[in-house]
Amino acid sequence: MRAVDVIIKKRDRQELTKEEINFFIEGYTSGSIADYQAAAWAMAVLLNGMTDEETTNLTLAMANSGEWLDLSPVVPIAVDKHSTGGVGDKTTLTVAPIVAACGLAVGKMSGRGLGFSGGTLDKIQSIPGYRVDLTPAEFMEQLAAIGLVLTGQSANLAPADGKLYALRDVTGTVQSLPLIASSIMSKKLAAGADAMVLDVKSGVGAFMETLEEARALAEIMAAIGRHSGRKVVCLLSDMNQPLGIQVGNALELREAIETLQGAGPADFVEHCLVVASHMLVLGKKAQTLSTARQMAESALAEGRALAKFKQLVQAQGGDVRYVDHPDLLPSAEIIEVIDSPATGFIEAIDAREIGESAVDLGAGRITKQDDIDPSVGISILHKVGDPIRKGDPLFVLHANNRNLADTARARILNAHRISSEPIDPLPLFYGVIE
Amino acid sequence: MRAVDVIIKKRDRQELTKEEINFFIEGYTSGSIADYQAAAWAMAVLLNGMTDEETTNLTLAMANSGEWLDLSPVVPIAVDKHSTGGVGDKTTLTVAPIVAACGLAVGKMSGRGLGFSGGTLDKIQSIPGYRVDLTPAEFMEQLAAIGLVLTGQSANLAPADGKLYALRDVTGTVQSLPLIASSIMSKKLAAGADAMVLDVKSGVGAFMETLEEARALAEIMAAIGRHSGRKVVCLLSDMNQPLGIQVGNALELREAIETLQGAGPADFVEHCLVVASHMLVLGKKAQTLSTARQMAESALAEGRALAKFKQLVQAQGGDVRYVDHPDLLPSAEIIEVIDSPATGFIEAIDAREIGESAVDLGAGRITKQDDIDPSVGISILHKVGDPIRKGDPLFVLHANNRNLADTARARILNAHRISSEPIDPLPLFYGVIE
Repeated sequence: MRAVDVIIKKRDRQELTKEEINFFIEGYTSGSIADYQAAAWAMAVLLNGMTDEETTNLTLAMANSGEWLDLSPVVPIAVDKHSTGGVGDKTTLTVAPIVAACGLAVGKMSGRGLGFSGGTLDKIQSIPGYRVDLTPAEFMEQLAAIGLVLTGQSANLAPADGKLYALRDVTGTVQSLPLIASSIMSKKLAAGADAMVLDVKSGVGAFMETLEEARALAEIMAAIGRHSGRKVVCLLSDMNQPLGIQVGNALELREAIETLQGAGPADFVEHCLVVASHMLVLGKKAQTLSTARQMAESALAEGRALAKFKQLVQAQGGDVRYVDHPDLLPSAEIIEVIDSPATGFIEAIDAREIGESAVDLGAGRITKQDDIDPSVGISILHKVGDPIRKGDPLFVLHANNRNLADTARARILNAHRISSEPIDPLPLFYGVIE
Repeated sequence: MRAVDVIIKKRDRQELTKEEINFFIEGYTSGSIADYQAAAWAMAVLLNGMTDEETTNLTLAMANSGEWLDLSPVVPIAVDKHSTGGVGDKTTLTVAPIVAACGLAVGKMSGRGLGFSGGTLDKIQSIPGYRVDLTPAEFMEQLAAIGLVLTGQSANLAPADGKLYALRDVTGTVQSLPLIASSIMSKKLAAGADAMVLDVKSGVGAFMETLEEARALAEIMAAIGRHSGRKVVCLLSDMNQPLGIQVGNALELREAIETLQGAGPADFVEHCLVVASHMLVLGKKAQTLSTARQMAESALAEGRALAKFKQLVQAQGGDVRYVDHPDLLPSAEIIEVIDSPATGFIEAIDAREIGESAVDLGAGRITKQDDIDPSVGISILHKVGDPIRKGDPLFVLHANNRNLADTARARILNAHRISSEPIDPLPLFYGVIE
């Protein structure tokens, strides 16, 4: 078999066999197939597509390129969650403790932020001492001991995906649904997931801007689940406006802790309860979504989820005083409340503009090497549809630089659109695909 | 400007500007744009196409990537020719001396054979001593002195094309009409051509198997000519059966010399006269094709073309005794006449099978590094449509290895199809595009 023939077959819109996909991914991982061949192939995949079977085989080939985690000694059904990324999305920080507190062990590997989309690791590392580099042995030990792990991705998990993603980034081949779906799913599979809840976001603040794209991606990932024998539930959620109030690393961690304390914003609490309910059903801790929701609500109300989160922070070397007293978390020097310039109804809060403003303030990365400032960010005080009066607080700016604050203020004001006519609120979810 | 944005633009079916194409080709030539980016871009071009203006800009960008030859001090209108490659195509060896003998200087850079298609340099180097590595100064001097040069391509002529072609070869991006057309035309432009005759072959023994593909390629090259201010005449010629009788390096050179001596096979002589006539009209040595044809016929009949060829061989260090006595040329140890197994009419002589059989015998290269054997090959004694009787000579095998001879004999016999019904001869040409 020759790499060029596999490329030509995909170029000519033919379906690749499992053997051809394995050959290509193994060769690319080992280096016998060059970057330039993988780049031509990726462009052919992007333009000509893949069948669900091809995408499943690609997912498995990438998962097989490194080690697999086997969580079965600790948890009978390993349930994972993944979000396609958005602005203000601190769901994992709240959902994982809720689910673990309900008796379903969660061993989660998360990522860092890139571009306008934040990352769970950056947020939780606002707590001094918190380690995200657990060894596989530490991972399994902690999962058995407290039923909850939240760490970084092992370097040898689906290394083909890491290599291919870096290549796609510089060759214009990121925006391919089969490549996006197999990238997400290969890591979940290698991380040992038997079942998973995928939060597929759409809107201006998501990688999939339209609901149609998000639905197509969700359908491919659900198909990969079917073809690979995993239970997959995809939630189609909104990402036109930020999720919750806070955008920025320490700010979001604080909101996640406040939510565990029972004082979260309504939209974020609801989002977390829906994700947690699906995870509990997939993990067979509840028969129905309504039973699962009651379990999750109790875990929150009784403080068991918060206690689980404290256990997690302690187990991974973090300073638990920061959980009891979130005021200790890093805060910005400049904290400004910006008032509404008009009376009316909030028509739009452009999530991408908010996310990019947070990056401008120092909360995010433009390249993977950039440092982040945990303290800066934005508190978005309203939701689309809310009535607002001129002079009422609209948002809060958290900055450490006067010029950056001034630029961000103008940009964030501009990202808010206020209508004189009443506006319907945005839904949290558009549907479920399984 | 970023390379990835140029790739994305072409991926998204948008037209690239001249500036974007120049940026990409300059970057690729200098190394600031990586092979993997050029590979993704080439696949996007292959699958999404290019407008004539984009293809012209690509051609000019590749021509501008190295040095340009300026033939104007020696020849007022530099007329070049090019064949897209075929089996038994020794046209340049005969046409260049004919045209030069008619007073139109021809400074030609040719290539080597690859795959089933032979190369002019390999053929003429059957003459001991013949140099194909003239310096630019030697090239100009000889062109001024005798009006005829036939040498290899200068390494610094359109280097972007050489680099891109090598990449396309291993990334499944060869079969793209804009990339093929710009590759051919960039070298012709950089080699100083003001006008050119392009022999675009179609059929089983050509790179373009269908007439439609050949016509499409010819139309793109004619458009590049219009957009870049060059006169371009494309001849659509047949390559279902080999051209002339001989296939193999020394065999073809011998046939070219015999044609110059006035003893060429009818189809090859006609092919050469048509190509030469168009060149003479483009070079303004004749007003009409019929006047041009008379000039070419006279140059042949009066021995002036043969004399010019001898001058060429002498000027480039070749042993001219081989021109006077082609029997001196290397010949094979095993020479076998194979008889027709049936009576009827020749229905097909699969040119690709013949070309590949010649490669099998040692006449060609599978990779660029392979050595060739000048003496081996095949003499195809009939044309499609010819009546034939069982036991009459069908072809002659020239081999240096018993096993290879046996394999080739079977393959070549198989490449001949004989019908009991009369068969129309194949045309030499299907049309002219300018």
